[in-house]
Amino acid sequence: MNPVRICIINPNSTVSMTEKCERAARTVAASTTVIKAVNPKDSPASIQGFYDVAKATVPMLDLIERDLTSDAFIIACFDDTGLDAARSLTDRPVLGIGEAAFHMACLVSCRYSVITTLRRSVPGIEHNLKSYGLDARCARVRASEIPVLALEEKDPQVMAALCREIEAAISEDHAEAIVLGCAGMVDLLSDLQDKYKMPIIDGVTSAVVLAEAMVHCGMRTSKIGGYAK
Amino acid sequence: MNPVRICIINPNSTVSMTEKCERAARTVAASTTVIKAVNPKDSPASIQGFYDVAKATVPMLDLIERDLTSDAFIIACFDDTGLDAARSLTDRPVLGIGEAAFHMACLVSCRYSVITTLRRSVPGIEHNLKSYGLDARCARVRASEIPVLALEEKDPQVMAALCREIEAAISEDHAEAIVLGCAGMVDLLSDLQDKYKMPIIDGVTSAVVLAEAMVHCGMRTSKIGGYAK
Amino acid sequence: MNPVRICIINPNSTVSMTEKCERAARTVAASTTVIKAVNPKDSPASIQGFYDVAKATVPMLDLIERDLTSDAFIIACFDDTGLDAARSLTDRPVLGIGEAAFHMACLVSCRYSVITTLRRSVPGIEHNLKSYGLDARCARVRASEIPVLALEEKDPQVMAALCREIEAAISEDHAEAIVLGCAGMVDLLSDLQDKYKMPIIDGVTSAVVLAEAMVHCGMRTSKIGGYAK
Amino acid sequence: MNPVRICIINPNSTVSMTEKCERAARTVAASTTVIKAVNPKDSPASIQGFYDVAKATVPMLDLIERDLTSDAFIIACFDDTGLDAARSLTDRPVLGIGEAAFHMACLVSCRYSVITTLRRSVPGIEHNLKSYGLDARCARVRASEIPVLALEEKDPQVMAALCREIEAAISEDHAEAIVLGCAGMVDLLSDLQDKYKMPIIDGVTSAVVLAEAMVHCGMRTSKIGGYAK
Amino acid sequence: MNPVRICIINPNSTVSMTEKCERAARTVAASTTVIKAVNPKDSPASIQGFYDVAKATVPMLDLIERDLTSDAFIIACFDDTGLDAARSLTDRPVLGIGEAAFHMACLVSCRYSVITTLRRSVPGIEHNLKSYGLDARCARVRASEIPVLALEEKDPQVMAALCREIEAAISEDHAEAIVLGCAGMVDLLSDLQDKYKMPIIDGVTSAVVLAEAMVHCGMRTSKIGGYAK
Amino acid sequence: MNPVRICIINPNSTVSMTEKCERAARTVAASTTVIKAVNPKDSPASIQGFYDVAKATVPMLDLIERDLTSDAFIIACFDDTGLDAARSLTDRPVLGIGEAAFHMACLVSCRYSVITTLRRSVPGIEHNLKSYGLDARCARVRASEIPVLALEEKDPQVMAALCREIEAAISEDHAEAIVLGCAGMVDLLSDLQDKYKMPIIDGVTSAVVLAEAMVHCGMRTSKIGGYAK
Repeated sequence: MNPVRICIINPNSTVSMTEKCERAARTVAASTTVIKAVNPKDSPASIQGFYDVAKATVPMLDLIERDLTSDAFIIACFDDTGLDAARSLTDRPVLGIGEAAFHMACLVSCRYSVITTLRRSVPGIEHNLKSYGLDARCARVRASEIPVLALEEKDPQVMAALCREIEAAISEDHAEAIVLGCAGMVDLLSDLQDKYKMPIIDGVTSAVVLAEAMVHCGMRTSKIGGYAK
Repeated sequence: MNPVRICIINPNSTVSMTEKCERAARTVAASTTVIKAVNPKDSPASIQGFYDVAKATVPMLDLIERDLTSDAFIIACFDDTGLDAARSLTDRPVLGIGEAAFHMACLVSCRYSVITTLRRSVPGIEHNLKSYGLDARCARVRASEIPVLALEEKDPQVMAALCREIEAAISEDHAEAIVLGCAGMVDLLSDLQDKYKMPIIDGVTSAVVLAEAMVHCGMRTSKIGGYAK
Repeated sequence: MNPVRICIINPNSTVSMTEKCERAARTVAASTTVIKAVNPKDSPASIQGFYDVAKATVPMLDLIERDLTSDAFIIACFDDTGLDAARSLTDRPVLGIGEAAFHMACLVSCRYSVITTLRRSVPGIEHNLKSYGLDARCARVRASEIPVLALEEKDPQVMAALCREIEAAISEDHAEAIVLGCAGMVDLLSDLQDKYKMPIIDGVTSAVVLAEAMVHCGMRTSKIGGYAK
Repeated sequence: MNPVRICIINPNSTVSMTEKCERAARTVAASTTVIKAVNPKDSPASIQGFYDVAKATVPMLDLIERDLTSDAFIIACFDDTGLDAARSLTDRPVLGIGEAAFHMACLVSCRYSVITTLRRSVPGIEHNLKSYGLDARCARVRASEIPVLALEEKDPQVMAALCREIEAAISEDHAEAIVLGCAGMVDLLSDLQDKYKMPIIDGVTSAVVLAEAMVHCGMRTSKIGGYAK
Repeated sequence: MNPVRICIINPNSTVSMTEKCERAARTVAASTTVIKAVNPKDSPASIQGFYDVAKATVPMLDLIERDLTSDAFIIACFDDTGLDAARSLTDRPVLGIGEAAFHMACLVSCRYSVITTLRRSVPGIEHNLKSYGLDARCARVRASEIPVLALEEKDPQVMAALCREIEAAISEDHAEAIVLGCAGMVDLLSDLQDKYKMPIIDGVTSAVVLAEAMVHCGMRTSKIGGYAK
Repeated sequence: MNPVRICIINPNSTVSMTEKCERAARTVAASTTVIKAVNPKDSPASIQGFYDVAKATVPMLDLIERDLTSDAFIIACFDDTGLDAARSLTDRPVLGIGEAAFHMACLVSCRYSVITTLRRSVPGIEHNLKSYGLDARCARVRASEIPVLALEEKDPQVMAALCREIEAAISEDHAEAIVLGCAGMVDLLSDLQDKYKMPIIDGVTSAVVLAEAMVHCGMRTSKIGGYAK
């Protein structure tokens, strides 16, 4: 079996987030898998809400278009920036980290909640859940009111805000698993998993192992219908 | 009451479609309404599928951002290119022509079918219906397999293909109204309305009268939640 | 363009509510639009729950049946008393104020809550939302426990009760817009819009501008299928 | 156990249908059950579509209101004319024959189809299925294009038309049970059950046994919420 | 009419629960109905969660398979242990007590809540509601955190815990009826009905009267499709 | 990284199917992954419909319970025999091949159809899709009317029957991917993938790569809520 080459695209331009995604990816990828993590330069510094998604889409697509060698692509923003368009560009697997986390949560729990950054990001995630047909088992999408870039600054309040929402999700939503709704939360994953005796699911690592899975069984995006070139 | 100024943005770069939208808009707008129809130059010639939508979004948003005087905006592509992002940019009303037609169809029929251009455009329209929460009364989204630009060439086969799908929608889907699923079909509207004794609904004209309605009653996009600036 | 003649039917027999609807209608209608507001004499004084709806339907239908000159009809009770039957009587547009408000709310927000009068009116509104296929974006239908006729008495507690529910809708339901769920609330609209920086939507004014819109673009109710004569 | 007194109300004014319902009811009722079948005089001769439903509702409600002795009421029209209003009038059980048939079909099959009279009656039945929250297992509501009153004339084409739709429901909808969508079809029930080796479900007989069941276990309509007096 | 013979199968092996079901059944059954209540010996003592359901299914099916004389079967565990499999075994009616209670609740209320034992039983009940297509009118499935066997011990805290959840269902879920989500709660039914002025619904008694109803009108499970032998 | 040990359980007792699953698994598993394929002896020879599922569940659970060394389990029957019960037994990942295929199909297509064996197996698959909350993107579950064991006999008609349904799924359902709805179809996978230029998805291979993925990122079944021990 050839090594799997995965290209992780952070669609925003914050290099520290790109690097964090790459580090997280390596912790779960097979030793033979080649991970490349990139980000566009001409993109918003963070993606919060519909307007940022729109601005970040074409720069992200350009990176896919120019990449002729990766076996699979991961869009490392929880709103799955431009996912359908990316799937229309290539038949190589493309995964959004939101989508990857939703699928993973369905495999380990009856119902789960998502904890994202700002309230303005919630409707976009809810739109995705509906258009993916995956909304039934998501109990609730919660906003922690932590801005994306605060996650980069290792503010101690971040951990407290996340814990508060996790505990509310367990008691109020009866969530059996928690999905972390921002790529920038991935470095808190291991601490949260230690603290809570339940699945805490991050999209970046979920997408990496799903991408390996898809390449291993030869899955490619359908080219009849919505994703036709 | 001040005149209503409506800016219609054709998000593709085909000028003949922009002009057609403008002519259609004038047939329904109040005499005092000012209609402006524009299109970006750096956009795909037609928008068919997810990739074209992604490419056309930012040029369309730029036109909104630079327009400080219009009272309302219409995105004149049936896939409602970048609608959520546009609503995040301004609190002035923004309407997609797909969305406008879906609402209008609900007001005159129990169930309706959409007839669009190519099969690859169908999933995007279905995603919109789901994320708008408006899928329940749409019986089916049908593809006529007429490419968008063929509509500009007045090919006589276009009318025949549309009629074939309209008749199938009535007999198979039990549609009580028909939504024309492409801005470029608007010049066939009057012939189709004459031929079929049922509502034939076009998004451009629907959006124009809805935009006037929203301006008249002072409706503005919410700025708390998903469309916050 | 000929003037649009709109007939507003308050299906209950409380004349002060009919007059209030007429006044509200004039604030948004085009100067050329002719507004007529009527109510049956042999109808309940207020419509609260399924039984009142049933009692009020035929008197309302009689008013439509005898009206040969209006271009469009508005049923000015939030439970859309007899809407489907009214649409079966004529192909001239008929709008319910509940329905009109739901459509308007979808055009300016990702999710909205309705605030109605008594708890017993809630299930009827929820039934309508489901049978219209419009339930997905309505976060919640709330009862303020203000009886309809209390709204006519300008009780200062009314405003307080509405504000309490609006604020709960924002914080608990994450509503981005508020729909006022009773025709009798329309005179509070402007005060509420001033107080809250978000769309507050009233059905009467929404229906008036939508009726003008439908007449302007020549929309008529389908006469094949459910609304056949 | 006291005898159960059931009042069957045919909401249209065609006496032969009322008598047919009564005869059918007696075939399934316990020998101790007292069956009374009535119809208003001032009601449409048949109920086909939303307008007829509206006209027939108040005369039907009047019959319930004046009946102080029956233990349960059955509304013997497949569109469940005025069911919610009737439930608001009394806490004695009220059953619609459409509703009764849907529940029965769920108890003997994974999915079923309804075969009703005219196409214009289909949307009303579909609205009911949605507002009852029972639409998921109904594969399709089919129109046989037999008018209600043709059922009273024992036209031999009626049986052929029903059989054609039953067979289409089996092969196209994968229906495992058939619901007869008109009270007037009840006298064909036994012939159809003999001919097809599958559940053929009639609403009148289903409602009679369900009414007995509800009286036996003391079920009464809730008076908090939507059905409060 | 021949007497109806109903076999109630408690799928767990706790004899006191079987006897309780039998006593409850007799309170609602017709005097001519023959009630038999049985339980397997080689089954879990209580059924709480998916694993217990799996263990209890085959012993329950064996009891049905050996019973050649009953006219109808009731599976007296609220998770409707093995219901679909039981329906595949025979065309004689089979009812689950959960299913029976859901149907009954729909006939007397606009929305209802279920109060079951442990939180781990909630997802199984929710799965049933979804696969039955009956989830729309169930406001919420609540766990009282009373273990099934505590119900056998007449612990006074049981009544208090149930009342607390009933009251929360009324105020928070706007439930208009309450479904008791465990066969073992049936002996509290009459006290709860006295205390609350609203429908309190128990599955065992509901299933008994529904089984009588089905036998009376000759309903048998469909043998084409999912329940084919 | 330690080698991943996957236990594939064919819940029926047909050894040739178990061996076929094992061979298929090896074609996609990493070279370091250890595959073990087993089946119970006291189980039905094939699983077709709800009754067979019930009979096969406990023998399958026993195999999981005795296996202390595997890292993940795959239930290799398309109806996901006993999946929820298996997840309650252990926190090691358990995947059903139906579920695995549904998730994979969502990652490569907008909509897909399932082609299974007999019509009586269709409702069980549809129940699963609903209770998983994954029904929205499945266009249709089709029966090929090939019995499971005919797949073991390499009957040439099998391939023809499958191709007929695949082609109908493309033209009638607008399926963009095909899910093979029986473990026994896995040896036809490569021929079908060669013949059709679209994703043909098999549950066994999908589950193997997903199981590796879950083990690699440390995913374990939640033990709060529905799957609590």
